[in-house]
Amino acid sequence: MNATVKETAEILKNHSKIYVFCHRSPDGDTIGAASALCHTLYKLGKKAKLLCSDNIPPKYEYLTKDLQNEDFEPDLIVAVDIADLQLLGDKLSVYGDKIDLCIDHHASNTFYAKKTLLDSTASAACQVLYEVIKELGVEFDVTIGTGIYTGISTDTGCFRYANTVPQIHRIAAEMMEVGTNAGKINRAMFETKSKNRLAAECEVLGKMEYAFDGRCAAITFTKDILENSGIDESELEGVATMPRQIEGVEVGITIKERKNGEFKISMRSNEYINVSDVCGTLGGGGHKRAAGCTIKADSEKEVKDILYKALEPAFLASK
Amino acid sequence: MNATVKETAEILKNHSKIYVFCHRSPDGDTIGAASALCHTLYKLGKKAKLLCSDNIPPKYEYLTKDLQNEDFEPDLIVAVDIADLQLLGDKLSVYGDKIDLCIDHHASNTFYAKKTLLDSTASAACQVLYEVIKELGVEFDVTIGTGIYTGISTDTGCFRYANTVPQIHRIAAEMMEVGTNAGKINRAMFETKSKNRLAAECEVLGKMEYAFDGRCAAITFTKDILENSGIDESELEGVATMPRQIEGVEVGITIKERKNGEFKISMRSNEYINVSDVCGTLGGGGHKRAAGCTIKADSEKEVKDILYKALEPAFLASK
Repeated sequence: MNATVKETAEILKNHSKIYVFCHRSPDGDTIGAASALCHTLYKLGKKAKLLCSDNIPPKYEYLTKDLQNEDFEPDLIVAVDIADLQLLGDKLSVYGDKIDLCIDHHASNTFYAKKTLLDSTASAACQVLYEVIKELGVEFDVTIGTGIYTGISTDTGCFRYANTVPQIHRIAAEMMEVGTNAGKINRAMFETKSKNRLAAECEVLGKMEYAFDGRCAAITFTKDILENSGIDESELEGVATMPRQIEGVEVGITIKERKNGEFKISMRSNEYINVSDVCGTLGGGGHKRAAGCTIKADSEKEVKDILYKALEPAFLASK
Repeated sequence: MNATVKETAEILKNHSKIYVFCHRSPDGDTIGAASALCHTLYKLGKKAKLLCSDNIPPKYEYLTKDLQNEDFEPDLIVAVDIADLQLLGDKLSVYGDKIDLCIDHHASNTFYAKKTLLDSTASAACQVLYEVIKELGVEFDVTIGTGIYTGISTDTGCFRYANTVPQIHRIAAEMMEVGTNAGKINRAMFETKSKNRLAAECEVLGKMEYAFDGRCAAITFTKDILENSGIDESELEGVATMPRQIEGVEVGITIKERKNGEFKISMRSNEYINVSDVCGTLGGGGHKRAAGCTIKADSEKEVKDILYKALEPAFLASK
């Protein structure tokens, strides 16, 4: 059921021991929102704990280092930036029917929670959460600001993407004014690469494959490349934007081969193809300009065949 | 002599035929500011003309396509984002002693103009100009907004760099609200590469050289690489940030070899080395985290020797 910002604030006010869930393969928006929410709840004198099925990648540890680790029996479970139950991941899947409240911005949200505050026009879950914190009357400080800023910055590609709304910029200004070190966060998020990542990137970009008359470009991080370079998936953030940056490309595909025979797909578009719809036909989802899915297949070639087949109607329709 | 925002607005009001100069090798901030200023002056019923020693790169043509081309004898000459006379470039150098007004944000500004409005705390010349337009009482519209947005976005690496001040975000929000297509501008500025540039980039990054225990990284676009790839310098915007993105690197150097035996140097730093000072010792300048200079030398090796020698004191002092 839908909840308003006011109702969401009421629910939070009326509970005192709160679990806050991030989605699996956590990113800056889900961790930033969970961190900011926990710090907000601390300021209200409540217990709060961030939980995630996967480990928090080292680059995001600044968001979780000041959180309280003590465990407790929750009287409220909140999911942030989690569009559907599958994204809870393995460890948290047992809570599937116990999510009381969801705060999200994905149009594809399945309303699995008892109450859902959804604003699909928001650039980030952190933008939605910002309104809730305002409503709660909690004053923003650097701990909350750091979480909120990280979420809005990472989900908009640092204010680059077409999903960036004016309000996002105003929130950014406000979070900087409470002491958030935006330059440092952005450097860590967008401007830092290991030598190994650089090498892997050069290798993969050198083998970029084009389809649909150059309107689609695909890169693949094979198991071999990932193993040889010694990097793991969490170090690859941001690569998904690279194929669609090439002139003339509408849809950019990034394929990451996992050890279990699965391929993780990130799809990005520039102007006219709704990749959330395309990924939806493959069991995935997301936003119209940024979406993803997971495909089980025997080879990279098979994966690409599946993807091109899924994309064909959209490319034919837009000729 | 220093001018205030109010005085600057007065000067503009009191003239009716105005030349607006951009710096040579023009970038988004200088062209954006000149374009926004011309459109502002049109709204005040004045004649205005943008002039630049170099051609406007195709990617910025959206900023100049609606400008009036008619020539006239100016009663006022304004320079925007031009820190010193050298940056006027060849064609405009004859006006060296005739610049009436300069609107800038470079701390290294040499006050060559009769009046200078300088705010070295501003992220971009367009931020300074924004205050002037406010003072003039001209309403922002999409033509002015497009120029201002382009300048603040390009000079902050799209709000990424540490030079981004909160006010920049508020201006961005306001410019989006008058109709500026921020997503489209950012895609053109930051998210579009030709296949040829991608190939050149991969080649150059693969040969990155490290110095000072990995705290300095340098890449070189040799004449050969530029010729073989068929790209020109204006297509290389943004590459200068790449070397300093590598983990552990404080100073990133990008060297572009020109046909005349000169090497154009871009220097970027992350935290503690003032590259404006370093480039200053080589006849260049800029900001403390982003600066440049031009070196005449016989080989890439000689250029690097000169650069490393210039950087040595800074690296020794920061050990």
